[in-house]
Amino acid sequence: MLPFANIAIIGIGLIGSSIAHATRATMPSARITGYDSDPAVRARVIELGFCDDVSDTAGSAVTDADLVILCVPVGVMAQVAADIADDLPDDAIISDVGSSKESVLAALTKVLAGARIIPAHPVAGTENSGPDAGFATLFHDRWCILTPPEGAEEGDIERVQAFWQKLGANVEIMDAKHHDLVLAVTSHLPHLIAYTIVGTASDLEDVTRGEVIKYSAGGFRDFTRIAASDPTMWRDVFLSNKEAVLEMLQRFSEDLSALQRAIRWDKGDELFDLFTKTRAIRRRIIEEGQDDAAPDFGRTHD
Amino acid sequence: MLPFANIAIIGIGLIGSSIAHATRATMPSARITGYDSDPAVRARVIELGFCDDVSDTAGSAVTDADLVILCVPVGVMAQVAADIADDLPDDAIISDVGSSKESVLAALTKVLAGARIIPAHPVAGTENSGPDAGFATLFHDRWCILTPPEGAEEGDIERVQAFWQKLGANVEIMDAKHHDLVLAVTSHLPHLIAYTIVGTASDLEDVTRGEVIKYSAGGFRDFTRIAASDPTMWRDVFLSNKEAVLEMLQRFSEDLSALQRAIRWDKGDELFDLFTKTRAIRRRIIEEGQDDAAPDFGRTHD
Repeated sequence: MLPFANIAIIGIGLIGSSIAHATRATMPSARITGYDSDPAVRARVIELGFCDDVSDTAGSAVTDADLVILCVPVGVMAQVAADIADDLPDDAIISDVGSSKESVLAALTKVLAGARIIPAHPVAGTENSGPDAGFATLFHDRWCILTPPEGAEEGDIERVQAFWQKLGANVEIMDAKHHDLVLAVTSHLPHLIAYTIVGTASDLEDVTRGEVIKYSAGGFRDFTRIAASDPTMWRDVFLSNKEAVLEMLQRFSEDLSALQRAIRWDKGDELFDLFTKTRAIRRRIIEEGQDDAAPDFGRTHD
Repeated sequence: MLPFANIAIIGIGLIGSSIAHATRATMPSARITGYDSDPAVRARVIELGFCDDVSDTAGSAVTDADLVILCVPVGVMAQVAADIADDLPDDAIISDVGSSKESVLAALTKVLAGARIIPAHPVAGTENSGPDAGFATLFHDRWCILTPPEGAEEGDIERVQAFWQKLGANVEIMDAKHHDLVLAVTSHLPHLIAYTIVGTASDLEDVTRGEVIKYSAGGFRDFTRIAASDPTMWRDVFLSNKEAVLEMLQRFSEDLSALQRAIRWDKGDELFDLFTKTRAIRRRIIEEGQDDAAPDFGRTHD
């Protein structure tokens, strides 16, 4: 017995296409209807063939759905919700995959008053975008966080949970506000910093961009991957989770100033103590299976 | 004809042991003598067997050497140079693998006046340390930057260059001051920022350390690898390349403040423009072979 029989995916980028691939792989009898506001993406999705149907409007995509997943940048969630409001079946569950949850929950609740809303955030991704970027195993052993509103039906939560577990994810349930705080530090702040340093490096006068690229294996390279993530998605994440992001940024800036001061005044012990502490955190990430210990990250030694 | 017949490696951590492994693999007839100030490391190196000899003093390790490579933290280069000064053969070339070069060159020149000094910096590494961490292919297709002082013999430079090429590296020659500026941005600043954010995350009151680790796949994980690098080595790098590191840090902080302001005042276009620019830099890193394009960095999709 599948949790859902008719799944509508609105917005077919990396995440939307990965959900389609993973649904095909794990729930082959479920029917998948896709929609994207970009006609070129719709045409490409038809070519790629991972949806049973591709609709020309968001509304017609959801008519028969028992699960609707909005896979669009969080800044357009309210607009897309309005586009489907008239066609959304009463018993359909509406979910999303946005990286910030309080603002999305507020937007959906406002536009779709009375709908069965169970927001979700699969903590998985790559730096690639678009309908060609998806793959069926993206969610394997990754976390998917559900942030149901107060008063959500237990049964609805369980069905969405079952769906994500089928896709290979481990599901956690969390308050939307706490989600936004946790993700501000584990995801939003790292992206913001990576974008900044890659920008700083590209603006130097005395070091050429070619030199930056040539010697990037010294550490810089690790930042460029996340600084290559989708610009629209990330603009919306920062603006929609502004309060938590600014709070984390402020703490980070204070800590960076302290380190800057330690360097300026030759306080080697302070540096050493911090660097020893951070090493222990890496060890725990490896122990808990969130990364592997293979040296030189992302490279094989043949 | 090998560039060197008797190689002394002083300090046997990740880089020292990798040089030994790579020398064994590519120049099997060269003789390798190792020394480390830590008796436990010396014992372990004897067990591991990748040196022909392990000396009990730095001086006795270099007596017969035609190449001496100091693989110690840059903060102790001067001390180690003093330890070998009396035993260093006149015709031996002395080199190192330090991540900052102006201060090392100054220290070696002062302590070993008249010696044939050709400093080197292989831009390669992992987050692991110690004599067990090395492997023969660490330098494959990585850059090694030589920063010979003015007046160095052309033939000496060529021999050190040939040595690193044998180990699989691509060699560049650069002024020590320029090296320090380039590496400040491609390596030192990224490490400093990674150390800071991992520290910031571990100090939060409202988000547990367990949560930070659990949801690290959202971006944070990429920072923890470099924040797990050797604390002593990095303390010395920041202190020895203080001027360039502080300059880069200042630029980064200004850029971060601008981004913070853009978020606070909802300037989405500014964010979008920066994020689009940084994506292009990632593309060039992949084109130039400094990383691969496989999505989800460091993970296979089975």
